Amino acid sequence: MDKKIEWLETYLSLYIGHDKVLEKMNDVDSPYVVLDVRNAPAAVKKDQIKGAIAMPAKDLPNRLNELSKDKIYVVYDWTSGTTLGKTALLTLLSAGFEAYELASALEGWKGMNLPIESII
Amino acid sequence: MDKKIEWLETYLSLYIGHDKVLEKMNDVDSPYVVLDVRNAPAAVKKDQIKGAIAMPAKDLPNRLNELSKDKIYVVYDWTSGTTLGKTALLTLLSAGFEAYELASALEGWKGMNLPIESII
Amino acid sequence: MDKKIEWLETYLSLYIGHDKVLEKMNDVDSPYVVLDVRNAPAAVKKDQIKGAIAMPAKDLPNRLNELSKDKIYVVYDWTSGTTLGKTALLTLLSAGFEAYELASALEGWKGMNLPIESII
Repeated sequence: MDKKIEWLETYLSLYIGHDKVLEKMNDVDSPYVVLDVRNAPAAVKKDQIKGAIAMPAKDLPNRLNELSKDKIYVVYDWTSGTTLGKTALLTLLSAGFEAYELASALEGWKGMNLPIESII
Repeated sequence: MDKKIEWLETYLSLYIGHDKVLEKMNDVDSPYVVLDVRNAPAAVKKDQIKGAIAMPAKDLPNRLNELSKDKIYVVYDWTSGTTLGKTALLTLLSAGFEAYELASALEGWKGMNLPIESII
Repeated sequence: MDKKIEWLETYLSLYIGHDKVLEKMNDVDSPYVVLDVRNAPAAVKKDQIKGAIAMPAKDLPNRLNELSKDKIYVVYDWTSGTTLGKTALLTLLSAGFEAYELASALEGWKGMNLPIESII
């Protein structure tokens, strides 16, 4: 039982809900920076979460110098069924950044009709 | 290798298959109680697993007194890609209840054309 | 933080990307053997990853003698939202085989238009 609880606590500690991100979305001093870690080109991605920064997971290890220890990073991929968000999250946490994966990913964000923006 | 095996064993111990729930579905003394932990209102949910009890994950911590230590709780959300089922599961396990997440969630249940019921 | 990193490292170590499998797909001496562990009959499955061997998760424990310690097994189910791939993976790892779950499962493979073949 303790193993299950510990597993669930760790699992849930990796995620952040859309509500927290959404609440601060229009604050100029929001602590959150949303990173779109999809590896696809813009023409395939077509749109992204409003205000997100395109930071493909494959490039992330070489672009950590663009990030700040004062921010909280929120990564997302197309869906939560992929491993890309967790790959990016591991890169960020290992480098000492505060970071979370967006629960339900882009698919869930769009499914709730939350703010997106075109990127082409 | 041992870490992988332990991780997988813990992961799989959190889930229950639809077959076990289905088998007891029409038994008056079924040990299973299915909890629909979706936070959405009934008008959005529209239908649910047959015989499920609506127990939104956000309300669950305040409604534990409605549950019994003699039952086995099976929680589900829309899909298995969300964190809500595991949030509910953690609440239940931490409070000492026997509980599992339904493998493949509502999406999988419907995909296999298993019994559902309208709730509006 | 260390718990998160360890969790993520273990999680990611369970998976293999489609790129690695694809790269060796046409090599006669590819180390990879792709196992389709879906329990559905061929008429329901309709197609599979090109060159995959049908090895339903439910039959796997009794068919381990068909496998080789010299190969690397890659298992997949319909989607990554199910527990079947991880059930098969646990069977294989516990029996001492090198094995991984295909990241994003059949759904992701098809979504990227990678090679499949009809099985009916």
